[in-house]
Amino acid sequence: MRARKKNWAPAVLSENPRIIRETENIKGSLKELFKNDNPIHVEIGCGKGRFITETSKINHDINYIAIEREAVILAAAAKRAEEVGAGSLYFMHVDVNDVLDYFNPGEVKRLYINFCDPWPTKKKRARRRLTHDNFITLYEKLEIPEIHFKTDNRILFEFSLESFCRKGWLLENVSLDLHNSGIEGNIMTEYEEKFSAKGPIYRLEAYPRKPHII
Amino acid sequence: MRARKKNWAPAVLSENPRIIRETENIKGSLKELFKNDNPIHVEIGCGKGRFITETSKINHDINYIAIEREAVILAAAAKRAEEVGAGSLYFMHVDVNDVLDYFNPGEVKRLYINFCDPWPTKKKRARRRLTHDNFITLYEKLEIPEIHFKTDNRILFEFSLESFCRKGWLLENVSLDLHNSGIEGNIMTEYEEKFSAKGPIYRLEAYPRKPHII
Repeated sequence: MRARKKNWAPAVLSENPRIIRETENIKGSLKELFKNDNPIHVEIGCGKGRFITETSKINHDINYIAIEREAVILAAAAKRAEEVGAGSLYFMHVDVNDVLDYFNPGEVKRLYINFCDPWPTKKKRARRRLTHDNFITLYEKLEIPEIHFKTDNRILFEFSLESFCRKGWLLENVSLDLHNSGIEGNIMTEYEEKFSAKGPIYRLEAYPRKPHII
Repeated sequence: MRARKKNWAPAVLSENPRIIRETENIKGSLKELFKNDNPIHVEIGCGKGRFITETSKINHDINYIAIEREAVILAAAAKRAEEVGAGSLYFMHVDVNDVLDYFNPGEVKRLYINFCDPWPTKKKRARRRLTHDNFITLYEKLEIPEIHFKTDNRILFEFSLESFCRKGWLLENVSLDLHNSGIEGNIMTEYEEKFSAKGPIYRLEAYPRKPHII
């Protein structure tokens, strides 16, 4: 997503109550932030945040954190979340590569990856895909028990099926045409609504096996 | 495929040199049959046999066996194979459930499953799918080192991705639109040529992990 200059963005970034600013101190203090023991679900690369905002409005017993590395886009997401009255949802302007700095292993109960950058297949670039083996290793270190992933990019989805399987994760509820699959309750991202007419939306859930067989 | 009565079928079934008739004695004697030590690849459910016939014509250093449980269809396949000059290829009129009666573990180096019956999702029927866990267990007993699978049935492919992954097999060269994937050398089945205009052809290769992590 292209981040155009927005005049309101700096004010949102410095004042919006949905944004966690002192991220260096966040690790280990999420319970205090949310003021409850509910499970925490995280979206990495939340874009303009429609998916996570709408999801948080429906699930009152889940705490949500959405991360996004583009500041202006994160500002738009936080602004929207406030305007529409999101549920228990915070945003962080951080890079997914640093997630171990923010979350303790076992703390995040579900990870959402929606329409992440597919990057070219070229080996060096493929490493940046959020479903590359190296990222899956990172999710394993975080002890993420489930990942929900969707994309409209066929090559990225083929790549992701292979990498989750290679890393020993189980695939469940795989859909190769989400919008025509009969799966109910799908919450669309902005991107998904815009581009789903052009081709199928692919979707999977991935679960790590027990450590001894990973 | 519907098996219409064919007047020529009985003669083909009793005389065509491509058909192995004494299947009860075949186990352990394939090397004698083929008169060489080349690897053996098997197609289960070969239909009218175009795929395996054309494949055998290209790969002279591989021995092929195609099995089909519908006699008239098998007859058509064997008839065609003779007419077009197939390579090192034999047919057997047997049921895939009985493969352990015909092959020794480790004897078959690759298994092809092309456009098998998708069966309804209903649990009892799903067991008949050639990529059901029970069949994968059978392929493990046969010590098949690789399976090449393709289908145009989305539900069956989603099911198959999950079952191979659940059984601990690796997925490789997954394609969710084989005919537009840039993968070269695909040999189409009769069915594939007829129906591929209606939607994508899905394809995967599956490899068992080392026994200790299956």
